[in-house]
Amino acid sequence: MADFIRLAAEYGFDAVDAGGGELKELVSAHGEQGARAWLQETGQGKVRIGSIGLSVEWRGDEAKFRQGLAGLAAEAQAAAALGCTASCTYILPSTDLPAAHFAVLATRRLRTCAQVLGAYGIRLGLEFVGPHHLRTRWANPFLWTPQETLDWIDAIGEPNVGLLYDAYHWYTNELTADDIRKLRPEQIVHVHINDAPDVPVAEALDNGRLYPSEGVIDLAGFLRALHDIGYQGVVAQEILTQAPPQESPEALAQRSQAAFERVYAAAGL
Amino acid sequence: MADFIRLAAEYGFDAVDAGGGELKELVSAHGEQGARAWLQETGQGKVRIGSIGLSVEWRGDEAKFRQGLAGLAAEAQAAAALGCTASCTYILPSTDLPAAHFAVLATRRLRTCAQVLGAYGIRLGLEFVGPHHLRTRWANPFLWTPQETLDWIDAIGEPNVGLLYDAYHWYTNELTADDIRKLRPEQIVHVHINDAPDVPVAEALDNGRLYPSEGVIDLAGFLRALHDIGYQGVVAQEILTQAPPQESPEALAQRSQAAFERVYAAAGL
Amino acid sequence: MADFIRLAAEYGFDAVDAGGGELKELVSAHGEQGARAWLQETGQGKVRIGSIGLSVEWRGDEAKFRQGLAGLAAEAQAAAALGCTASCTYILPSTDLPAAHFAVLATRRLRTCAQVLGAYGIRLGLEFVGPHHLRTRWANPFLWTPQETLDWIDAIGEPNVGLLYDAYHWYTNELTADDIRKLRPEQIVHVHINDAPDVPVAEALDNGRLYPSEGVIDLAGFLRALHDIGYQGVVAQEILTQAPPQESPEALAQRSQAAFERVYAAAGL
Amino acid sequence: MADFIRLAAEYGFDAVDAGGGELKELVSAHGEQGARAWLQETGQGKVRIGSIGLSVEWRGDEAKFRQGLAGLAAEAQAAAALGCTASCTYILPSTDLPAAHFAVLATRRLRTCAQVLGAYGIRLGLEFVGPHHLRTRWANPFLWTPQETLDWIDAIGEPNVGLLYDAYHWYTNELTADDIRKLRPEQIVHVHINDAPDVPVAEALDNGRLYPSEGVIDLAGFLRALHDIGYQGVVAQEILTQAPPQESPEALAQRSQAAFERVYAAAGL
Repeated sequence: MADFIRLAAEYGFDAVDAGGGELKELVSAHGEQGARAWLQETGQGKVRIGSIGLSVEWRGDEAKFRQGLAGLAAEAQAAAALGCTASCTYILPSTDLPAAHFAVLATRRLRTCAQVLGAYGIRLGLEFVGPHHLRTRWANPFLWTPQETLDWIDAIGEPNVGLLYDAYHWYTNELTADDIRKLRPEQIVHVHINDAPDVPVAEALDNGRLYPSEGVIDLAGFLRALHDIGYQGVVAQEILTQAPPQESPEALAQRSQAAFERVYAAAGL
Repeated sequence: MADFIRLAAEYGFDAVDAGGGELKELVSAHGEQGARAWLQETGQGKVRIGSIGLSVEWRGDEAKFRQGLAGLAAEAQAAAALGCTASCTYILPSTDLPAAHFAVLATRRLRTCAQVLGAYGIRLGLEFVGPHHLRTRWANPFLWTPQETLDWIDAIGEPNVGLLYDAYHWYTNELTADDIRKLRPEQIVHVHINDAPDVPVAEALDNGRLYPSEGVIDLAGFLRALHDIGYQGVVAQEILTQAPPQESPEALAQRSQAAFERVYAAAGL
Repeated sequence: MADFIRLAAEYGFDAVDAGGGELKELVSAHGEQGARAWLQETGQGKVRIGSIGLSVEWRGDEAKFRQGLAGLAAEAQAAAALGCTASCTYILPSTDLPAAHFAVLATRRLRTCAQVLGAYGIRLGLEFVGPHHLRTRWANPFLWTPQETLDWIDAIGEPNVGLLYDAYHWYTNELTADDIRKLRPEQIVHVHINDAPDVPVAEALDNGRLYPSEGVIDLAGFLRALHDIGYQGVVAQEILTQAPPQESPEALAQRSQAAFERVYAAAGL
Repeated sequence: MADFIRLAAEYGFDAVDAGGGELKELVSAHGEQGARAWLQETGQGKVRIGSIGLSVEWRGDEAKFRQGLAGLAAEAQAAAALGCTASCTYILPSTDLPAAHFAVLATRRLRTCAQVLGAYGIRLGLEFVGPHHLRTRWANPFLWTPQETLDWIDAIGEPNVGLLYDAYHWYTNELTADDIRKLRPEQIVHVHINDAPDVPVAEALDNGRLYPSEGVIDLAGFLRALHDIGYQGVVAQEILTQAPPQESPEALAQRSQAAFERVYAAAGL
């Protein structure tokens, strides 16, 4: 994590995503104050923790859920000590379980996670996942649009749950900037940007993503719409590719920095 | 309603199910005290209101839900004034809506209904529906087992929600008395008994029910299991038939009384 | 209500507060579409309903609460039909009931109200009340600071509950613009402004309020702080005076308009 | 803990209360299956874990609460692995914090605890505390009656919260067996019995308790009422005395066994 944070600071990123477990170890090793000092120094005072992945496995059986839940509060406490206020998880758009039964089990589990995170001032971001091929990847369709996800958030019913809004999933849901403008900023917990290749949208693969500005997504429109509604949270870059990247971490960071600068410039922000 | 209550009193039934709207009109017309006196007199002091149907349509669109919700509290207040402590609704085992999305919408709607009912001391009973033909009647499978329904109740998350346990749905789910014995009595809000014809269980139709003891369901085992776990609530008879009954109300009541007596005798209760 | 809305339109106010009962009658009389047309015409297309008072009496006994709750959903439905998205209630800072017991009863009651309002897209605003004389007006101190109220909102636990932030209560709580800047905009459902006479703050009476800019409250700082955090909701004027106003409605509206203009000008907004 | 469990088995007790931390260590050391085998062997197959104390400090500041919450899920998991289904905490009847503010903070904290416990099938029992001297021991009165506690449970709003009903607090609240008969069995999570000296009830000290049947409480009536409503959970003995007991553990266990036998015999159970 240290190298990653150093790189982020060097290339002008103000937030990185991290694992809750890593943060817990950091706080275990250095204490809360020590861990904060470490982050401050490693990131040159410029980098904060944007989000931690939700470590609880809420998609499998009850034993696995309980096992994961046992560690959640301690991770949340570590994350909170380091100033992180978001934890995110993605929703696969299909499932081999009966869809309605899975929906009710997951509603209850995510509510408990949200309550625990909320005790530490951390919000839970749910990432809808748009790529078409995943909607039929497992036997039964589940949820994949922002509206369905907002409806799920209402069912979960906790005040600290919102969307992780990823540009790739916005694009593969074939939505527009005006769809974003219908949202209130507090409905969005975290934002990812990345780009899609120039293939028919129904063929854009989840792990076939490009760096921002290298593809066909209207990221300028995406970022402007988020700005218009007053979203002031983190915009993180998430690149999933089929082949592991060939370039050095430094080269990738530089490329990523350039990509961010281009899309923000295009958005006029 | 008056005739029905008089008949119930005459033939030894201690509870009838009613419509929330009827009770509201009754209280509107006579006042709370007057309505109680009317029930006392009409039912010879022997008949109470076992349950009201949940009048809110939670299965359709949002406008319909809101329309129904607008009247719920007043119905609950009338029901409470008459000593009724249960309101029930059934869950169709399949749906033309995408199942997961419908599950999350319905979770939120039923939670609100439960809260409103709870303010008047009324519990919400959810009736799982077992007949096989209904599982494929609409496009997408939904929920139909008691366990799925209990999991849904957990997702709804309100303390005053439980099962309506209907013998026909127990039978068509192919469950045993021991499945009932795993429950705690407070998980059951209301009970229906009726019987099934001697056809393969997968062919038992929802509207092809018989009077208790006239068919093949082990109602003695069903009632004993409920007794064993300490269930002390109402056991009501619900008969759904394809053709409207040919007999007079009195004849039906007598037949129903005889049916109850036979199954309770068989159960040794 | 019609005269009030006409006046508001004439003197440049873009929102008025109303009673839920009034709106319900309006919709009963004209239908939803008709009521919207009436509001559009009466307000010259410039005036919306900022907030309705919560008509449910949650401070008294259970029977009163239940009675009020019976009408809430229908009022909420009427308000929603007219585009209103807020319902507000005030919290007296002392009570003759044992404080903790009253707190838990009121928590449950307000949660139910919030759920019902939420079903119609309406938020619940809780108004903390600062004047010192009311803190000892009844036997036991209750809640009167924004922080206590936010903690209460957490206990209520519904996503659609926030503060009604009134400048008079901000002033009598002796808070600063920076206290407002610590809030997120979505924590505020509604805002009231009015002014206080030049007496020691502990002597400012709840019903001794002045028109904005006629007293000593730093309303420019108050409005700037709300603007800084991104609050975009309604700012309404609420004037409570011991003597009924002597001037004509037109004169009062003109005075109020002038008052608003002065404080917004002073705030540079 | 081992000696205590051995003693319990020897003297005919079928349940002991334990610390969640102890159980967690036990499971850490032996694994879930190993810990179950250890309990089975140590308790001669006759002793189960009746309840664990809630280890989360919900009465102090937020940092302390968060610290405690971090360990709760793991304790709950260990307890569940050993078949324990209850965790209990007591409510002091007065507090130095402002009562209403403390009530809302504690409502939110206990809800989160209940959710976490509920994920492991564990219920949360709240013990009201009756002795008069504690009602004025701290500056502000809080909650001490069963009804207030039930109202609090409604405010907490989770289905798995109920009362720890202690005979000493029933006695010092000056309640009767009929007050117990108004409850439903599922409203009671756990029961304590012990006895009070023959002093005026207002002078019975919290730490001046006697063994069952050695004092003036109508424990036969207490146990019969619990039996009448169908309570089937654990009845544990809790003796708090000012001086540490002088007798050997064996002598105390024997005395306790004799005490239980006397009161159950008196209750005709």
